[in-house]
Amino acid sequence: MSTPTSHDGVRIDPHRLIPTIREYAEIGATPHGGVTRLALSDEDRDARNLLARHLHELDCDVLVDDLGNMRGVMQGQIGNAPVLIGSHLDSVTRGGRFDGALGVLAGLEILRTLRERSISAERTIELINWTNEEGARFEPAMVGSGGATGVFSGDWVRDRTGRDGARLGDELGRIGYRGEKRHRPPVGYAYLELHIEQGPVLDDLDRPIGVVEGILGITWIDVTITGAASHAGPTPMAARRDALLAAADVIQSVRRIGESAGTPAAGTIGRLSVEPGLVNVVPGEVTMSVDFRAREMSLLDDMVREFAESVDEIGQRHGVTIELNRFWTSSPVAFSTSVIETLESSCYQHGVEPVRLWSGAGHDARHAADVQPTGMLFVRSRGGVSHCEEELSDDDDVVLAANILLRAALALASVEVPAGTGGDPG
Amino acid sequence: MSTPTSHDGVRIDPHRLIPTIREYAEIGATPHGGVTRLALSDEDRDARNLLARHLHELDCDVLVDDLGNMRGVMQGQIGNAPVLIGSHLDSVTRGGRFDGALGVLAGLEILRTLRERSISAERTIELINWTNEEGARFEPAMVGSGGATGVFSGDWVRDRTGRDGARLGDELGRIGYRGEKRHRPPVGYAYLELHIEQGPVLDDLDRPIGVVEGILGITWIDVTITGAASHAGPTPMAARRDALLAAADVIQSVRRIGESAGTPAAGTIGRLSVEPGLVNVVPGEVTMSVDFRAREMSLLDDMVREFAESVDEIGQRHGVTIELNRFWTSSPVAFSTSVIETLESSCYQHGVEPVRLWSGAGHDARHAADVQPTGMLFVRSRGGVSHCEEELSDDDDVVLAANILLRAALALASVEVPAGTGGDPG
Repeated sequence: MSTPTSHDGVRIDPHRLIPTIREYAEIGATPHGGVTRLALSDEDRDARNLLARHLHELDCDVLVDDLGNMRGVMQGQIGNAPVLIGSHLDSVTRGGRFDGALGVLAGLEILRTLRERSISAERTIELINWTNEEGARFEPAMVGSGGATGVFSGDWVRDRTGRDGARLGDELGRIGYRGEKRHRPPVGYAYLELHIEQGPVLDDLDRPIGVVEGILGITWIDVTITGAASHAGPTPMAARRDALLAAADVIQSVRRIGESAGTPAAGTIGRLSVEPGLVNVVPGEVTMSVDFRAREMSLLDDMVREFAESVDEIGQRHGVTIELNRFWTSSPVAFSTSVIETLESSCYQHGVEPVRLWSGAGHDARHAADVQPTGMLFVRSRGGVSHCEEELSDDDDVVLAANILLRAALALASVEVPAGTGGDPG
Repeated sequence: MSTPTSHDGVRIDPHRLIPTIREYAEIGATPHGGVTRLALSDEDRDARNLLARHLHELDCDVLVDDLGNMRGVMQGQIGNAPVLIGSHLDSVTRGGRFDGALGVLAGLEILRTLRERSISAERTIELINWTNEEGARFEPAMVGSGGATGVFSGDWVRDRTGRDGARLGDELGRIGYRGEKRHRPPVGYAYLELHIEQGPVLDDLDRPIGVVEGILGITWIDVTITGAASHAGPTPMAARRDALLAAADVIQSVRRIGESAGTPAAGTIGRLSVEPGLVNVVPGEVTMSVDFRAREMSLLDDMVREFAESVDEIGQRHGVTIELNRFWTSSPVAFSTSVIETLESSCYQHGVEPVRLWSGAGHDARHAADVQPTGMLFVRSRGGVSHCEEELSDDDDVVLAANILLRAALALASVEVPAGTGGDPG
């Protein structure tokens, strides 16, 4: 009967992790400390090549699937149901150096630490760099993880066209990262992802680490308000059918619905445009987007229903027509209780009381959770800013998060053998 | 002692005016019955050439000043202080066939009628086609009339650069309409302008003709709201500094101020743009324009003061900064009481009870009123729409308006000679 080896004293090397983050941040570096590393760009290729070299140096197999997802495989003592650690190296335009990259490089640091200490985990540990998490070049976001977990077909993913007109599949070939379908990531024993919070909760609470309970459901609605354009001078206020005046009520309705649904639910209008958009013309048409998020699908649907009712009333009151098109929905997902507990236990072993929170942003873990027990760690991001050059996580927080991730990965990679049965030699 | 000749029975010729309007509407005709005849374009040149030919056929002198303003001069029995009839042949892109052109062509029809009947008015009557009334190609609007009346210098007017990069002065030369400064319109005994209403008041009242009491003052304010862009998912509602949410309050504040100032005062937001303008990002910045109009300068200033106070409160409540820049103001002008009475009297003589109203839109008459007694007639425009191909005034209304204008012009052109003094031979 084998006993899982204790690796409680193992720590990652801060003097290797922090310079490595800096090294990757030079690929696509922007003037003010951020990175532009759009999916499948030359910069993304360079970052992938560096990761492949670093993984080869650890004697990991480096496999690339037909969607460009990269895997670094560190063989354990048993081959199937590995522990997966994933994130992404692509970024938005003028994004931060931690968003995505931190998760990949913390995983790399874990593999380096294990190799350095000659620790062979019971389970295989795999590091995954997912293709096009951001969706900044090719829409939608997270097509690599979504393709690998069966949400999207491979052909559909490769047919995505970028803002620059390039086809995703062609760009995979161009940068040398169109691999084979048989190399898609296997179903794991568990999937872990470390990411910056991208929100202000941890920073506001002055706490470094969050354990994520799940990812909010998201629904997007296009709103078109049609009134009547008219000249701002000769059209009496009472005779107007001002689409922008109706839009003001719609904006406030979205806020009201977001607030009354309670945190972490939210409602946001991010896009709004006015036609004809001239200083002296009463707007005839306004188009805008609504983004609703909630922890439960039923609540999300309730928010949409309440919004539709509110919009009906607003349209009648302003004498305008308002059309809604709910064009995209991502259902909420609750992460695995056992993975959450493993991550929390790892936090406590490092003397950290984690904050339990929900992720308002989508992550590759959203798709991963469909096929295996999944959990995420958040690390504090100063001011909660992200997708900008000012995005910043402190070195101490980053090192702490990587150590917590290491301990959780090792705990999950230790095969528990029921008493009285045979097992692999310990 | 001379007695003014009575021309009460004189009428314009509908079978000449209506086809003439159609003839000019073919220059720059758009598919759906409108015109695109941007200032100093080839189409504007063709319309000017046609007008010059038509004026020459009436033995009028055709004079062009250094701003491209055209004058057709029909000499009366005394030379100075003529009666001026003005409007413009330029249009916006896909504008209507009556906006501007109607005023010029009704004036042409009056000159044709006088010549046909061999009526020689006591005063000289001049028809003016002003340059660039619309401001659709060269900003600002009304530079021809504003230049001629001393609001703008000639050099400044000619230095205006169009949206297409062309310089106004160069375009005058290119189309052959850069004339001489000495040909600028003289100070008139009175200035008359007939125009479509560009608003719904006459149509809503089912009345064909309005006599304009004055032109509203207008002020334009740029508003910049600066909050903080943040991710729509991970940023709790309470932690946001949403510039668009503040903008909704600003929109409603402008409406409230416009309404409480009472018709014809008004407040409008016509332009609004959102940064970064992405579906899943809380807006960090909103810029918009505010247009306030009122009959008195003091009321206009009060509206702006109330707006600034309201905006202060909104900014504090939303945790955003709001900057205002009042970048342009056109003071209100009240038209000449005696010209208004002449126009009204002419209406009654044609069996029409005119509606007294204020013009919310600017017109060349705004500048003309600075230097001579001025008045305007409005003709009903179906649905109050303008600056679009659907703009329409009925033939009967147009003919009626031209006859009223004719009678008013003749009344003003008849020199009243005090009893007991000598005068020109009758």
